[in-house]
Amino acid sequence: MHSDKRASLLIKNARQLITMSGPVPRIGPQMNELGLIENGGLAACGDEIIAVGKSDEVERQTQLAENCVVIDAGGGVVTPGLIDPHTHPVFSMTREMEFEMRTLGKTYEEIAAAGGGIRASVRDLRTTPKEIIMDKTRKRLDRLLKHGVTTAEAKSGYGLTTESELMQLEIIKELNSSHPLELVPTFLGAHEVPDEYQSDRSKYIEIIINEMLPVVAERKLAEFCDIFCEENVYNIDESNKIQTAARKLGLKLKFHADELKSTGGAELAASLKATSADHLVYISDTGIKALAAAGTVATLLPGTSFSLRSKQYAPARRLIEAGAIVALATDCNPGSSYSEHFPFMASLAALNMRLTAAEAISAMTVNAACAVGREKSAGRLECGLPADIVIWDMEDYRELPYHYAVNLVSQVIKNGKLVVEN
Amino acid sequence: MHSDKRASLLIKNARQLITMSGPVPRIGPQMNELGLIENGGLAACGDEIIAVGKSDEVERQTQLAENCVVIDAGGGVVTPGLIDPHTHPVFSMTREMEFEMRTLGKTYEEIAAAGGGIRASVRDLRTTPKEIIMDKTRKRLDRLLKHGVTTAEAKSGYGLTTESELMQLEIIKELNSSHPLELVPTFLGAHEVPDEYQSDRSKYIEIIINEMLPVVAERKLAEFCDIFCEENVYNIDESNKIQTAARKLGLKLKFHADELKSTGGAELAASLKATSADHLVYISDTGIKALAAAGTVATLLPGTSFSLRSKQYAPARRLIEAGAIVALATDCNPGSSYSEHFPFMASLAALNMRLTAAEAISAMTVNAACAVGREKSAGRLECGLPADIVIWDMEDYRELPYHYAVNLVSQVIKNGKLVVEN
Repeated sequence: MHSDKRASLLIKNARQLITMSGPVPRIGPQMNELGLIENGGLAACGDEIIAVGKSDEVERQTQLAENCVVIDAGGGVVTPGLIDPHTHPVFSMTREMEFEMRTLGKTYEEIAAAGGGIRASVRDLRTTPKEIIMDKTRKRLDRLLKHGVTTAEAKSGYGLTTESELMQLEIIKELNSSHPLELVPTFLGAHEVPDEYQSDRSKYIEIIINEMLPVVAERKLAEFCDIFCEENVYNIDESNKIQTAARKLGLKLKFHADELKSTGGAELAASLKATSADHLVYISDTGIKALAAAGTVATLLPGTSFSLRSKQYAPARRLIEAGAIVALATDCNPGSSYSEHFPFMASLAALNMRLTAAEAISAMTVNAACAVGREKSAGRLECGLPADIVIWDMEDYRELPYHYAVNLVSQVIKNGKLVVEN
Repeated sequence: MHSDKRASLLIKNARQLITMSGPVPRIGPQMNELGLIENGGLAACGDEIIAVGKSDEVERQTQLAENCVVIDAGGGVVTPGLIDPHTHPVFSMTREMEFEMRTLGKTYEEIAAAGGGIRASVRDLRTTPKEIIMDKTRKRLDRLLKHGVTTAEAKSGYGLTTESELMQLEIIKELNSSHPLELVPTFLGAHEVPDEYQSDRSKYIEIIINEMLPVVAERKLAEFCDIFCEENVYNIDESNKIQTAARKLGLKLKFHADELKSTGGAELAASLKATSADHLVYISDTGIKALAAAGTVATLLPGTSFSLRSKQYAPARRLIEAGAIVALATDCNPGSSYSEHFPFMASLAALNMRLTAAEAISAMTVNAACAVGREKSAGRLECGLPADIVIWDMEDYRELPYHYAVNLVSQVIKNGKLVVEN
């Protein structure tokens, strides 16, 4: 615990310091293990954690550098920075009219038929200047950060031409270097079939495989390739073809799977050793077993069911009981879930998926890190790891789902630097 | 619109200035009328609004005082300050353990039987120093204000002795004078039957009527008297007796009615000309008609259904169609709905009660003003009224329910003074 390095950051007097130290990933009952230290403290040197333990011991054993930032957690809770492993933040036009149409009783499918849905966002993005999209995306990253998110996955998927998909990935790249929030880029050219290829979908799939994927891989603009695998979007065969091609080019895989129907998306994701399968509202029993056996993370998006007025939520308890790795995410996007309030997903998960507060925290830290390939560096507070930390204005971590919708984040530290003070 | 007074506050360039000018209350289709001015502006002198209209006209016709605060709404939305007409903010102990018990499958009734529920809060409040309760309550008012609430009703009801009920009302009185948020005090001695009178409930009712109510009225510590009217709490006869006594002492009436079962609470509220009947999840058809006929406001609390994991929400559409005055509130309390995020109730109302964004805004402004007897002074932006104003970081008011859980409030003005900058 002690170190020769001088601390540039010291956090003391955390009533509950939740380190998440322990098994990676957290499976089954392990999800309730928080590595909790009462009256905890933590020190960092630069971007690296150099001491974690009881507050008084950390204080005694740590030498402070000049100008060391000392934060008194004031009897609050401290956790690792949250990791949001599924977001679509790169868009301009919001779609509040569709939300109101749903209030008035229209279904997601009816709204899409009336010109709404993903393809409405595509039409907008293609005709909007990059700078405007960049500014609006940056604002969304600000909001994620204010809600305790220090690492977020971010997808393309609203362009559906080579040029506009690359533009989105470039925005993600530029923001990743200029914004404190760390972004994990995902290529999602197979988010929908664009208007101009509705009558020739195989042609668009060819473009994805032969044009988009090679340049994305060559220019290293994405770590992951994702696909909307669903009967009416990309079916199992098409998904298999695209994702196999992506894997050959060295991209890791994600799936939008079994969101609207049970179509075997989870099984396909597992068979291709995908890093994660997401949504899973209608996952089958074989799908659950397959994910657990493959170690493919089940990333659940309760905000989407909530915002779509669905009564159906992914079967989180069955997934946990089967030994699958369960993570949570916002699915922040302009259609089915417009929110950057990641901690609120713990409330939705408690109320609609029966996740305890501790399970939700596991699903937003260590397990979410696994969903974005950051399990070695993020989601835990341990010596040698990056100092990504959230200080919460609550006395007990169980307040997180209970005190709902309010932002209880007090301060956020990314790579050892204080980046948010709410 | 012009005035001889010099402006001490000028708000300009509101893309949508929602004045709510028009009928008070808003009934039926009127709830969709927002009195919306595009490119709007507003001026105030001291605490009073002196000009409302198009931004350029207001600017042209208004003379600015020295040190006038000028706020560029930056193309955002401006609304009246929100009015939360049902809160229980005066408590110390939070009850996150009960929330987790519900996650694990326990019912509200089982938790009460295990020593939880309102009576747990009562035991805590009676043994906690007033200063601690005051500090925690003040923090909740800060949070309400940050979420755009400029007037809130606040109830006692966690003491259930004369002394401790008065203590809560005194806390409300002291905070009302020291905190920018305006509080409307409600006496709720009939929130539960306290432990010590479980076997002699008529004795406690006698204490309410003969001890508590006279001193509350005499010391003018409450404007309203509320009661938890429910089969297992205070039945119809008991509620009638207590509320009739309160009315004779000059208190206006509120009811917790038909929350867990349909027991005729709404009908009783209407027959006693109560100002509001609240909850109403199980209101009967005759209850709906009675409220509409009596002009008793139906205050709906979607956060409570949400937080209790209930599938049942109050029948907002049927109430609106019947011509009842519909308001929304947080029900902020440590048991069944712990949140100060009033705007989020618009999301819950849209998703679970099918209220449009405009209906929700009516329910949180003009109609909520009616629920707390402030219909002449609050809930609208009109010349001569107090300058209670929220400036929102959104381009269209329909973003309010759609962009859920995130706090979109940018600035809050109470009585002409800028009191929040988020």
